[in-house]
Amino acid sequence: MGLTARIVIIGGGFGGLYAAQHLKRAPASLTLIDRRNFHLFQPLLYQVATGGLSPANIAAPLRAILKRQKNTRVLLAEVVDIHPEQGLVSCADGTQVAYDHLIVATGASHNYFGQDHWREHAPGLKTIEDATEIRRKVLLAFETAERESAPERRKACLRFVVVGGGPTGVELAGALAEIAHQTLKGNFRHFDPADTEVLLVEAMDRILMPYAPALSEKARQALTEMGVSVRLNTRVTDIQADRIALKQGEHEEILATHTVLWGAGVQASPLGQILHQATGVALDRAGRVKVQPDLSLPGHPNIYVIGDLAHCSNADGAPLPGVAPVAMQQGKFVARRLLALLQKRPAAARFQYLDKGSMATIGRARAVAEVGPLKFTGHLAWLMWLFIHVLFLVEFENRIQVLLQWAWNYLTRNRSARLITGEKSAIMPTIQQQK
Amino acid sequence: MGLTARIVIIGGGFGGLYAAQHLKRAPASLTLIDRRNFHLFQPLLYQVATGGLSPANIAAPLRAILKRQKNTRVLLAEVVDIHPEQGLVSCADGTQVAYDHLIVATGASHNYFGQDHWREHAPGLKTIEDATEIRRKVLLAFETAERESAPERRKACLRFVVVGGGPTGVELAGALAEIAHQTLKGNFRHFDPADTEVLLVEAMDRILMPYAPALSEKARQALTEMGVSVRLNTRVTDIQADRIALKQGEHEEILATHTVLWGAGVQASPLGQILHQATGVALDRAGRVKVQPDLSLPGHPNIYVIGDLAHCSNADGAPLPGVAPVAMQQGKFVARRLLALLQKRPAAARFQYLDKGSMATIGRARAVAEVGPLKFTGHLAWLMWLFIHVLFLVEFENRIQVLLQWAWNYLTRNRSARLITGEKSAIMPTIQQQK
Repeated sequence: MGLTARIVIIGGGFGGLYAAQHLKRAPASLTLIDRRNFHLFQPLLYQVATGGLSPANIAAPLRAILKRQKNTRVLLAEVVDIHPEQGLVSCADGTQVAYDHLIVATGASHNYFGQDHWREHAPGLKTIEDATEIRRKVLLAFETAERESAPERRKACLRFVVVGGGPTGVELAGALAEIAHQTLKGNFRHFDPADTEVLLVEAMDRILMPYAPALSEKARQALTEMGVSVRLNTRVTDIQADRIALKQGEHEEILATHTVLWGAGVQASPLGQILHQATGVALDRAGRVKVQPDLSLPGHPNIYVIGDLAHCSNADGAPLPGVAPVAMQQGKFVARRLLALLQKRPAAARFQYLDKGSMATIGRARAVAEVGPLKFTGHLAWLMWLFIHVLFLVEFENRIQVLLQWAWNYLTRNRSARLITGEKSAIMPTIQQQK
Repeated sequence: MGLTARIVIIGGGFGGLYAAQHLKRAPASLTLIDRRNFHLFQPLLYQVATGGLSPANIAAPLRAILKRQKNTRVLLAEVVDIHPEQGLVSCADGTQVAYDHLIVATGASHNYFGQDHWREHAPGLKTIEDATEIRRKVLLAFETAERESAPERRKACLRFVVVGGGPTGVELAGALAEIAHQTLKGNFRHFDPADTEVLLVEAMDRILMPYAPALSEKARQALTEMGVSVRLNTRVTDIQADRIALKQGEHEEILATHTVLWGAGVQASPLGQILHQATGVALDRAGRVKVQPDLSLPGHPNIYVIGDLAHCSNADGAPLPGVAPVAMQQGKFVARRLLALLQKRPAAARFQYLDKGSMATIGRARAVAEVGPLKFTGHLAWLMWLFIHVLFLVEFENRIQVLLQWAWNYLTRNRSARLITGEKSAIMPTIQQQK
């Protein structure tokens, strides 16, 4: 096919962007399609949700990242259908894009365990809009508490419940505790923000499930010291605008709260379903696409699925977690495979994930990390976490800014991006309506 | 009244915040009421609208600014009525706040000359939401141009019209020209962003009316060199979603465009009307409150109006412009007057504005400034502009960040905050609908 091979990548997250960047020298014409005009550094989204960073600190325009990559164009569009027999993808605005090779990397969002009406009261954290909405909700809860005179109602305003003890839930809960105990100190006249109650609810018997049990325990201890109440073996049975129902064994409890944040469950992007209908490929329970060892679809060797949308197992049969390093390595693998195919060289037939370790931050200078057999906690783990996250921020400028912002936050225990913005904020807190 | 005097300030802009800060040591209890939880540095809002800065760079939480000022509480609420006979203000959520002295500083927004339906197609620039909406509109116009194949329609996507040649309009037009000619260079594959057309429309015979004519002319020349087409003596006669009608003398012209930005007219905050009904005070045509020489209302010596909401003249009878320095000096004046009254000392009876000069930036290292009889243009004026604006950014941290961001933008000709965000952005460009 030579110069004319057309490669289409859907999704500009870690998987799609890494695939595109590793095809920089490919004798092909690349089209990267995304609904958004920026790549989002999702592991730091919780920092935006808690006022530590601004959206622009953790996002970079896709066009800017790829502007020197002359074989690549970026298309801002939403893909609504895929036609493998014609080699076409269709976008919502009617545009059609032809491909010889297709890489689908549209990720996943949260799953409310069939209770989709919970979504309204318990926002997840996947997009910039989610993050500013959570920031708005959290800050308005404190503002409402300042106006509230009845102690019981004030208590409900100052109770925050985070559902799901994965890295996102742990990071959110830790950041909320810091906001309450440090950032907002002295900001209010009618209550002490230290009275804030932060709950982290996890259905399993420990948080940070993919980690070693000893690290999970360290993280739990660190959260508890920071004032987070960690509820293990606890399931959510109901969420309303003004309360949440929890069940631990036979014990059921209803807590008054206006702020429930959701970090549980996985629901693959709708493109999984579209691929299933178009190619008959099997999906797992979360809607992820069951790919071949080379990440292509059975019977469709020119369609690849990578990242959180792919259901993929290692050689030992263990399913791979939905984390950024997996998506990055898969993007690179598919790019190299396509390069080899285009240059008629032999290509690797099996993707193998190399686990370089995992880490989660819990708060100011607290983190847990696992690198092979080594386990780190406390300051050292936090510095590692900081270093690695800043290292991977795509644009150089953002790295300096984020470091500066963190150094400042660390020294002053401050979070300056505490803005209540968005359409709803022009009027009054929605929380008010439930009273 | 001693320790118990209750001072209520409505509005946390330059006027209200400066009044509050200068009452730091007053033997009184202060309440600062604002609809938003932050002070906004409005002179730099155009930088957010054009992707140069993030919202958090130019906004600081009011509670954080005032947290050490123990005689002051901040209330997040929208004032809907004022009752001078009882000394009460009423908020939208039902809260009532009692005052002995009231300072009203709720500012002004844009006036569409009675054509309020233009607002929908031609957003003004007064709030953070306005700025991110304008950023979204501008970036989406370029994205749509990339997908558009018909030359005429692409041309309409790449035409930006700024209405109003005041400082905001001049700064917006200059920044748009920079984006087109520098920032987006190489970002697109199907057109050259340098083909962008930026028009600045002004009804009078020169831009920057409050400045000396020679500076207006310098600014016009600088804009023209940057590629902005400045239309003087030109009025807007119609705005639709896909076009604008302009009239210069007898010549009428209809231009196809999807992006019209509004920077003309002044409409005082609705609290002016409320004060008129409550006290009978006269308003000017723009709805501004005609205050006494001491900035109080006739017959209501304990109610002051300051900033853009006040219609105030200097000793020589010339009306004061609606700019930040006037609001700041008025805030300080009223604070000192109240302090003197509370301490039973004689108080100044007449506010006198001290004009320290005016300046506007036009683009990268271009600005015009006027300090008394001195006039500056070019690099020196730009450095003065930069220095003074950064100096007045309320929180120290923001100053460093903004300087860093600017230094970076200046060196790289980059604007990194080019994110298309907001509820509408999750779907597709609204521009598309008109096709």
